[in-house]
Amino acid sequence: MTTHIPLGEGREFAAIRALLEIWGPRARGIGDDAAVLEVPPGERLVVSTDTSVDGVHFRRDWLTPAEIGWRATMAALSDLAAMGAAPLGIVLAITCPPEAREHLLAYAYGVGEALRVTDTVIVGGDLSGGATLSFGVTVFGSAVRPVGRAGAQPGDGIWVSGTLGGPAAALAAWERGEAPHQSHRERFAGPVARLALGRAVAAAGATAAIDISDGLLADAGHVARASGVELRIALEDIPVIEGGQPREAVVSGEEYELLFTAPASFDPAPAAAAGGVTVTRIGTVAVGAPPGGCTAHRKPVVKTGGDDHI
Amino acid sequence: MTTHIPLGEGREFAAIRALLEIWGPRARGIGDDAAVLEVPPGERLVVSTDTSVDGVHFRRDWLTPAEIGWRATMAALSDLAAMGAAPLGIVLAITCPPEAREHLLAYAYGVGEALRVTDTVIVGGDLSGGATLSFGVTVFGSAVRPVGRAGAQPGDGIWVSGTLGGPAAALAAWERGEAPHQSHRERFAGPVARLALGRAVAAAGATAAIDISDGLLADAGHVARASGVELRIALEDIPVIEGGQPREAVVSGEEYELLFTAPASFDPAPAAAAGGVTVTRIGTVAVGAPPGGCTAHRKPVVKTGGDDHI
Repeated sequence: MTTHIPLGEGREFAAIRALLEIWGPRARGIGDDAAVLEVPPGERLVVSTDTSVDGVHFRRDWLTPAEIGWRATMAALSDLAAMGAAPLGIVLAITCPPEAREHLLAYAYGVGEALRVTDTVIVGGDLSGGATLSFGVTVFGSAVRPVGRAGAQPGDGIWVSGTLGGPAAALAAWERGEAPHQSHRERFAGPVARLALGRAVAAAGATAAIDISDGLLADAGHVARASGVELRIALEDIPVIEGGQPREAVVSGEEYELLFTAPASFDPAPAAAAGGVTVTRIGTVAVGAPPGGCTAHRKPVVKTGGDDHI
Repeated sequence: MTTHIPLGEGREFAAIRALLEIWGPRARGIGDDAAVLEVPPGERLVVSTDTSVDGVHFRRDWLTPAEIGWRATMAALSDLAAMGAAPLGIVLAITCPPEAREHLLAYAYGVGEALRVTDTVIVGGDLSGGATLSFGVTVFGSAVRPVGRAGAQPGDGIWVSGTLGGPAAALAAWERGEAPHQSHRERFAGPVARLALGRAVAAAGATAAIDISDGLLADAGHVARASGVELRIALEDIPVIEGGQPREAVVSGEEYELLFTAPASFDPAPAAAAGGVTVTRIGTVAVGAPPGGCTAHRKPVVKTGGDDHI
């Protein structure tokens, strides 16, 4: 159903109407004070919010407008993937300065493509002027058993999806004033939230999961600290992009791959098939002192990486 | 319960820890990729997002930092009030430029006070740098029967809460370079989401409701258009602030009072008592041509007012 409340006059409503045309059946019931959603019986509501700010999370000379919209949406949906939740919908707050107005529909197109690929919908939003282009994406999902960061158990295997290092390589190239390699650029510009994988590993008994937004080592540290364990990661087992270095890959942020822990009996093949992505074992959870340490090559790794946006 | 996931190192986490100290029991379970909430059985999930941007929705020389945080939170919660929903929680995305960092805890204090007064909690958020101070507040609530804009029926009474005109008078004073009257300033700086009133009128059979963010006439137009009816409003019956003019009051935005329609049998006294605010009948819903027109003094009113932020 794609019934929208008839909207009023004015510039904001005209812009919203144009957005709704772009989104078509991917927008549902927009125009009331709030959207009404159903959480499937027996499931719990999972919510997260994520902001993409021009000059902080992206630069407009690095990405196309559609890529900016796609990436903001996928980054937010990635948090649902990490919880093993199925998306119910998103709300989107766009702050659009005058000089970016001409790209509004292209940003929206990118948002809509991300919704289409993840089979979810936009149920509400807020459109505002302002000096800085910004996308606030809040995502809603549901899960019978959401997977947090705090459940990793000694003896569990540590797993990661995909190959790491692309976003850091793309950023490094841009910062040198060069065009990044196309495959690195694509990893930064076109991430895909690992929603199917997240649900599959949750169903298969994953004990903890996180999406790699700060860099593998930093995010592994979050799991270790939350779970009160040590994550012993073998640097040489990290799946790295072609030509990349493990030491760079483990501090590459905004990967939007999943890092998860699962009992030793975990079979990666069905989850990898469901998620359409490789999953690689990179270490073992241990009783650690201090809790939260990560090791590589059996030596402690200093967590100098990870993104810190403020 | 106020269990938080242990947080990691870094400047962002240090800031989040300081925010959590400010919020105390008003923050719950923060630190995972997403928050997990329960929607009461038999109720529907209601969600809305609202952005407050420096220079657009407020000015930092007009409001204290705590007022900025309070107002951003109440403006978002007001959409739940309009739906007749009880709040389950909020997520908050703060974009904070370097020169505003010193006020971060004061913004958060204002958010926390708004949460305390409305008896709700913050369950997640996002803290980012950026050139423009901005607060993205997404609210979650639940209701057995959410009240939208589309249900107004011919013959229904039209009601409004509180007294109107204060925010417009405050803005006019600021724009003349004068200090606003304290009572007008308070209406702009310290709105209170009419959550209890919204639930009471929903339970009493309200057919449509909206919060007055664009100005009474503009918002009445939204209800009229969504419901396919005419809202005949008697300008002389509008409850106006002391010394104010009805023609100014009906185009005063960001009032965060409720406009609602209810069958002729509606008794305002119990709802007003539950909401702790006056409710005043200002007109009658009619079969209208064209649908969506509003009248005052039996003459059509041209909607020249209403806020249009983009």
